[in-house]
Amino acid sequence: MTTDVIAGIDIGGTKIALALASTDGRLIVKERIPTNVGRAPETILDEALARLERMANDASARIAAIGCGCGGPLDRSRGLILSPPNLPGWDEFPIVEIIEEKFNVRIVMDNDANAAALGELTYGAGRGFDNIVYITISTGIGGGVIVRGEVVHGVRDGGGEVGHIMVQPDGERCPCGSRGCLEWLCSGTNIARRAKEKLRAGAASSMTKIAGGIDAVTTHTVVEAAREGDALAREIWDETIRLLSIGVGNIIVTLAPQAIIIGGGVSAAGDFLIEPLRAAVNERVKILPAERVQILQAALGGDSGIYGALILGQQALAETKKENLAAD
Amino acid sequence: MTTDVIAGIDIGGTKIALALASTDGRLIVKERIPTNVGRAPETILDEALARLERMANDASARIAAIGCGCGGPLDRSRGLILSPPNLPGWDEFPIVEIIEEKFNVRIVMDNDANAAALGELTYGAGRGFDNIVYITISTGIGGGVIVRGEVVHGVRDGGGEVGHIMVQPDGERCPCGSRGCLEWLCSGTNIARRAKEKLRAGAASSMTKIAGGIDAVTTHTVVEAAREGDALAREIWDETIRLLSIGVGNIIVTLAPQAIIIGGGVSAAGDFLIEPLRAAVNERVKILPAERVQILQAALGGDSGIYGALILGQQALAETKKENLAAD
Repeated sequence: MTTDVIAGIDIGGTKIALALASTDGRLIVKERIPTNVGRAPETILDEALARLERMANDASARIAAIGCGCGGPLDRSRGLILSPPNLPGWDEFPIVEIIEEKFNVRIVMDNDANAAALGELTYGAGRGFDNIVYITISTGIGGGVIVRGEVVHGVRDGGGEVGHIMVQPDGERCPCGSRGCLEWLCSGTNIARRAKEKLRAGAASSMTKIAGGIDAVTTHTVVEAAREGDALAREIWDETIRLLSIGVGNIIVTLAPQAIIIGGGVSAAGDFLIEPLRAAVNERVKILPAERVQILQAALGGDSGIYGALILGQQALAETKKENLAAD
Repeated sequence: MTTDVIAGIDIGGTKIALALASTDGRLIVKERIPTNVGRAPETILDEALARLERMANDASARIAAIGCGCGGPLDRSRGLILSPPNLPGWDEFPIVEIIEEKFNVRIVMDNDANAAALGELTYGAGRGFDNIVYITISTGIGGGVIVRGEVVHGVRDGGGEVGHIMVQPDGERCPCGSRGCLEWLCSGTNIARRAKEKLRAGAASSMTKIAGGIDAVTTHTVVEAAREGDALAREIWDETIRLLSIGVGNIIVTLAPQAIIIGGGVSAAGDFLIEPLRAAVNERVKILPAERVQILQAALGGDSGIYGALILGQQALAETKKENLAAD
């Protein structure tokens, strides 16, 4: 006997996560395969879908609806992936159509930050809340704004682009074309960039030794050296916290969410990031009792996205049921 | 024969607006009385409610539900007004209870910026949209965030406090306790303050003459002098636009609303405010096609709030109907 299940797919630049959950949301199985971006998008997707099919067969389950998260920009209305920076060659790629053809079920797609926000809301640090802002600090900085339990997509799916909050007005040029954007200063790549610039300019620091050369310095190096008291690393980390607190503070006064949830690779720094960030935000936001907006580390780590894809799958199932009712 | 109508009350520091609308939202009558804040809150409210009763009698109408907007902070859950700066003596004032006792109908209350946002959404510049951010630039700067047609109140009703977006990080101290807040630099009072500081420091300008003395300079003076090409006034106005564009830009990247609607006294500057603001925001927000987020002057002027109060009244009526259904 086969049971109906929900499938989730989270397509990243290095790995694709796949999962099945019961229709009431309990996780059944979760796997990861490498993306190997050198190959054609169709090949990568076919491999992932074949794996998903085997997972369903192994669980004696029938996939009833699918949720899919992947790097933006996307055209959600047409079901297209539009040249995301982490998926070279995925240009106007009709992912929804391809998945629908294979499984003949409904798909709901969203960008990875929005999916991760939903994952944290339902399975992670956001449980019990319905108004949160999720911020992922990774290669870039993205976000997902959830109001009354649903993602705020905004026009052209532009909602949650918190990496482009201006935290250094008229400051350094960001690749987006604006200046002083949070992402340009505080994403993982850019924390490392700021450290390397100082090191190349001749600043003394243990970071070069820890990393095995200036070029090898990462945000992880900065965090490790700062924890050990290295002065330059501390300076860079303190400045990172200061700039993040401006961005987070601006989100809080605009939306007063129940929680700001910080995910992405840089959030692995844990309390070394979250505690000083809380303190800095409390210094900045005076209009609202600071303890009312919780600042939390994401609870699902690298799995926020795949859990979020399962929620998108639930939405797809709900849409299917509504359609069936209308057809009856 | 009496018809059921909705009543709206908008309590401001200088005037109280009162209105009646049909249950399907068409305005029937609208009046204004002075607040005369020297008197006890109970006296002021009684007078307004007596006037409202007469308006209903004159229209042969029965008030079926009431919406009320007034200056925050409020405790919406307990129906209290909590010492708003523009209503001295209104401390923990149980406005909802008093109105309910008099009219024996349901009241929905919200702060004036949220009410004005709803007014603009339904009757003004926001018609046809469901995601907007309303910003009032008046004595202070407040706002109302509307997502999917409803106000985002946030924790402790802290949503929409866009006057405390930090547009000058670590800049001048704001009375709220933070630094570089939009309100401290760009509210009507503070635009005039910045002008007066420069004039007192000896800067040459036609503003002193236009106003009839430095102390009499207002934002209106700044706008008038800037329109006539006065260099200092232009400098102050340009800086105002620059700072506003940072605040508006930060809201846009976070929420990507369909429109940012600018109201409050300073918005009376019209295109002299809106056009350079649009241009400055377009220079700042590069992540989203700027033409997709409209920046608009509020269409209802000083009436945004009373129209919003009528929408709150509609909500109160809907709650009454739901209750009656549940009781059946």
